[in-house]
Amino acid sequence: MKPRAFLFDAYGTLFDVHSVVQRAGAGISGDLSALSRLWRQKQLEYTWLRALMERYEDFWHVTETALGAAVRQLSIQASKQDLDALMRAYLFPAVFPEVPSALEALRGVPLAILSNGTPEMLESAVRGNGLERYFTQLISVDRVKTYKPSPRVYALGPEILNLRADEILFVSSNAWDAAGAKAFGYRVCWCNRSGAAGEDLGFTPDFVVHDLSAIALLTYGNSRFH
Amino acid sequence: MKPRAFLFDAYGTLFDVHSVVQRAGAGISGDLSALSRLWRQKQLEYTWLRALMERYEDFWHVTETALGAAVRQLSIQASKQDLDALMRAYLFPAVFPEVPSALEALRGVPLAILSNGTPEMLESAVRGNGLERYFTQLISVDRVKTYKPSPRVYALGPEILNLRADEILFVSSNAWDAAGAKAFGYRVCWCNRSGAAGEDLGFTPDFVVHDLSAIALLTYGNSRFH
Repeated sequence: MKPRAFLFDAYGTLFDVHSVVQRAGAGISGDLSALSRLWRQKQLEYTWLRALMERYEDFWHVTETALGAAVRQLSIQASKQDLDALMRAYLFPAVFPEVPSALEALRGVPLAILSNGTPEMLESAVRGNGLERYFTQLISVDRVKTYKPSPRVYALGPEILNLRADEILFVSSNAWDAAGAKAFGYRVCWCNRSGAAGEDLGFTPDFVVHDLSAIALLTYGNSRFH
Repeated sequence: MKPRAFLFDAYGTLFDVHSVVQRAGAGISGDLSALSRLWRQKQLEYTWLRALMERYEDFWHVTETALGAAVRQLSIQASKQDLDALMRAYLFPAVFPEVPSALEALRGVPLAILSNGTPEMLESAVRGNGLERYFTQLISVDRVKTYKPSPRVYALGPEILNLRADEILFVSSNAWDAAGAKAFGYRVCWCNRSGAAGEDLGFTPDFVVHDLSAIALLTYGNSRFH
């Protein structure tokens, strides 16, 4: 059966989180690649930990405190201005190159985003990359004040799209997010951009692609969905 | 006020998780130090993710799947026998050198453990290191089928020790665990063994020490607790 809607993760899937340090980190000396990786790692850890602690703060706050922790843990010298510039750049991450044409190829079926990002962050990232015409909904975890992979987050998709979870193809580049979505009941496509070995959380995706351009092929170009 | 009980985290605080690969990884070629770090990282991530997914599997299962994922992600060649040997060694991690004398110095006040480990793993690690006479309780998250830093886990301490959380000094080397315990309401000592920069989760420990020998001094050697 063809999916009746596509639901995309945002950061790492549509938007390249590492573009932020590449674009706005020029004034900082040190290993910027290590900073970008640790920032992302801490950002995810803080979402998981705050959700488990039942001490939700929104993704903007978490992203900012994760940046501070990453800078301290790597002993990187960065001024308040440097950090503010990185945070501003987080509002405008680069889209992965194949994304606009991949979304174009899927038009006709509702497309939406389900993300940890705040409504403001999602709106800004989508508009800044000229993608607003593709999406019917930008759904933020902020509605339920917890984070992925809580089932309370994944429940927002069927509720807002008014479909069953197994009628929706959930697409994420984050293996743990794909596992969480599968555990909830979506059909899941893991976009394994880096050829990573994956995680073992007991739930495997229905499909694996290397970039988003393969989704239209997967959906319309052969019989696997029929 | 002096604490009426001490509640210790186990892995990383009493027991050196990296002793496992050092002791039982000799047959494996590759970067064993990277393997040990990634194994630990994946183990913690899988506890957080499974707890958030509401898909609890016990710490033995999580430790084993995390080992498999770490080996695959690092493209390390290891046989089933190699991995089984590492898992068996996880039952007998080395105790940090100062721990027995530090516990001895605290006798007279109830000491207990609150850990992600299964009851079998905790029993084995404690007995294997001859520490059983120090602890009145080995409390496993398995009673509530979720993981730290969920408040449901921290609630086990006051419930089983029959004390208020703020009458108990919770001791952990894991900064995120110290934050979770503080958010719950314990008095908290972070044992910062490596001189790390710490995390920013909105909750700071009451005390910071470099190893556990400092706890008796902190408690009995000066007036900070009075």
